Amino acid sequence: MRDFLPEDVRRRRYVIGVVTEVYERYGFEPLETPSVENLETLQGKYGEEGDRLIFKILKRGEGAQTGQADLALRYDLTVPLARVAAEYRGKLPKFFKRYQVQPVWRADRPQKGRFREFYQCDVDAIGSKSTAVEAELLAAAADVLSRLGFTDFTIRLNHRQLLSAMLETWHVPAEQHATVLVALDKLDKVGLDGVKGDLLAQGLPAGTVDAMTALYAACLLCCTPESVLDLIGEALPAAQSAIGELREILALSAVTSAAGTVRLDLFLARGLGYYTGAIFEIAVPDLAGSLGGGGRYDNLIGMFSGEDVPACGISLGLERMLVVMAERNMFPPSLVASAADVMVVQWFAAKTDLCLALATEFRAAGLRVELYPEAPTEDNQKGAIVKQFQYAQARGIPFAAVIGKPELAAGTVSVRTLATRQDDSRPRADVAAYLKTKI
Amino acid sequence: MRDFLPEDVRRRRYVIGVVTEVYERYGFEPLETPSVENLETLQGKYGEEGDRLIFKILKRGEGAQTGQADLALRYDLTVPLARVAAEYRGKLPKFFKRYQVQPVWRADRPQKGRFREFYQCDVDAIGSKSTAVEAELLAAAADVLSRLGFTDFTIRLNHRQLLSAMLETWHVPAEQHATVLVALDKLDKVGLDGVKGDLLAQGLPAGTVDAMTALYAACLLCCTPESVLDLIGEALPAAQSAIGELREILALSAVTSAAGTVRLDLFLARGLGYYTGAIFEIAVPDLAGSLGGGGRYDNLIGMFSGEDVPACGISLGLERMLVVMAERNMFPPSLVASAADVMVVQWFAAKTDLCLALATEFRAAGLRVELYPEAPTEDNQKGAIVKQFQYAQARGIPFAAVIGKPELAAGTVSVRTLATRQDDSRPRADVAAYLKTKI
Repeated sequence: MRDFLPEDVRRRRYVIGVVTEVYERYGFEPLETPSVENLETLQGKYGEEGDRLIFKILKRGEGAQTGQADLALRYDLTVPLARVAAEYRGKLPKFFKRYQVQPVWRADRPQKGRFREFYQCDVDAIGSKSTAVEAELLAAAADVLSRLGFTDFTIRLNHRQLLSAMLETWHVPAEQHATVLVALDKLDKVGLDGVKGDLLAQGLPAGTVDAMTALYAACLLCCTPESVLDLIGEALPAAQSAIGELREILALSAVTSAAGTVRLDLFLARGLGYYTGAIFEIAVPDLAGSLGGGGRYDNLIGMFSGEDVPACGISLGLERMLVVMAERNMFPPSLVASAADVMVVQWFAAKTDLCLALATEFRAAGLRVELYPEAPTEDNQKGAIVKQFQYAQARGIPFAAVIGKPELAAGTVSVRTLATRQDDSRPRADVAAYLKTKI
Repeated sequence: MRDFLPEDVRRRRYVIGVVTEVYERYGFEPLETPSVENLETLQGKYGEEGDRLIFKILKRGEGAQTGQADLALRYDLTVPLARVAAEYRGKLPKFFKRYQVQPVWRADRPQKGRFREFYQCDVDAIGSKSTAVEAELLAAAADVLSRLGFTDFTIRLNHRQLLSAMLETWHVPAEQHATVLVALDKLDKVGLDGVKGDLLAQGLPAGTVDAMTALYAACLLCCTPESVLDLIGEALPAAQSAIGELREILALSAVTSAAGTVRLDLFLARGLGYYTGAIFEIAVPDLAGSLGGGGRYDNLIGMFSGEDVPACGISLGLERMLVVMAERNMFPPSLVASAADVMVVQWFAAKTDLCLALATEFRAAGLRVELYPEAPTEDNQKGAIVKQFQYAQARGIPFAAVIGKPELAAGTVSVRTLATRQDDSRPRADVAAYLKTKI
């Protein structure tokens, strides 16, 4: 877990600002949930691996002695949303579209762009099974990335029911579904032969493995996603409805900001257990992991309310985006802001009130003002003042304002442009307005 | 710990926005630290009571079996700042002025305006012993509250060294200092006689109690803070430097946004153990607790770096401010925003792509757009469309945009103002611009 110094915070805020603005354009409203959930709310939702990575909080009071945990740190933003959707059912609109940008915690081994505390930027739409929902979510995510300057991202699209149909058609035993999906998901990394070897090693019959890989090989030769879906539809009759949804999502995406970025990927599996329909993952070439991902999860809310409510969402990883943006130098130059527009210099040994009054005037006018905190001493006034100008310059503050003896007598303020060392004297009443025109 | 639904989040963001803007006018820069710190970083900094209220996180891996904790949730923003100031010494400016708006966690019993997860809005200035620092912090806090519309807050001001001088002058045993200060702090609630009774019950000699309460009674009769400080200075010669600082802070505050709000309060003690100089607490009449507080803590950073660095800060409680603002109805009416500026109605049974394309155009123009997710069915088109208009109205969305059969033929879009049910047809290319003028 990391500290964010001012420059880091400014970069994070810039990205969060774009995310927020775009999500709101899609009609999503902000939600925030507590960092801490009941342990039982989280357990059993993320698979075995996920359960292991939950940070657990020790009971207070007498419980502390027993070493038991009853609370846990939020692991993602989807399960808390499902809890909220169940808990506030009557209070929320029929179609609840929320976004949420908050940290989550996983007791994972840190690696590039992966941290134990990290921010997710989630959008989810609750209450509709329409594929317009998927299309809007993909559009929103694509819009965020485009606005941030990403031009080379791909949204991989697949469907859980298509994966299930495949596993069932080929009689893969239920207990092997998860590991087989993981093997298929590695195609990008290990190639078709690698996938084949992995599946054989898992003990799948050679005939099954051949059928699976042959189908995938055939799909790879298809020119359009539509022809891939035709092919799959013939091979997997059980997947008709999934294929229909994928067709709709692809067609709708063509008229949104996601146009040209959505790619059908029959190998995409995604780890989390709660997905029931379309699944997505967003990738850029120079990042091993994904920038984000999501999918439809029509049963998760039912785990809390006893009543299934359709839902679908997508999550962008803030740190992932930041890592790539930093490497590619994608931040606008205006972000490298100084702490203040102007520094008020303390010229006299004992007139801090005069300086503070000037700072107060500047602030009331909307300027960002640093007051040098320490007044010069009588015996080294000149040296102390030189040091103050040097400090302002080192801090990247563009202007220094001074009331010295002549200024005090004349009712003026002297403004130094630190880059050019030019001084410019103005009536005190005009200085704030003058500075505002300069910044 | 609470969930924040969209309206709550908007209110919270409004206050955080004002806090951030004001703090930046005072030259403070943003810092963010992790929610989780090493347990040993936090322990022993907040007093016994504080240690008990820290949320502890269970060790991962094998440690989980033993029930041991090694991490903890952030308890305030000051100790993490001190850790950062020690850890990044070379990287930070000589005078590091940071603000931080983040949640902290305390395993406290919840009560009005007090939660187990709550946000603090801290400003701290590190590196200077000048009383200009205190004056600027008080000004920043006062400025925030004024900008939010608070007109009746008081900043109570006292000094730890003055309290120590008093306790030492009257030979109060060191082990009783904490409880005696708590007793004095209750003057507002229990009156002078109540304080006296409490001190006697603690076993202080009657002579000591009489001397203390007589001095306080005399102070209460003084007309100006200056005359109170004269009186105290005579009674407590050991407090000269504290008194000098208090005089400076009061004088400087007169030329800042805090003018008229700072009140010397010799009974203010403040619980946290790390204060060494001036201490502050901000109160409004209708809240039992404080809106915020702070003080100078010149030794805390040294606990991490081995080298004392002067520091002073003030913290505003976000939830405290929100509770009072909600009760007093202080939020600007513009905050009650709807989820979207316009809802795109699905008129046809199978033209979602047409609607999505229109939504995409609106969003590109900067509008916040909700697309009704579900298309009408062939057999109940009219009913479904009526329902869509009703939905938009119930959600407070001001406009609905429709492309029906005539609009499709004419290349127009019909815009309904939901409040008046007025329809207005415009060429599709002009609609976004038209809507932008209306919102």
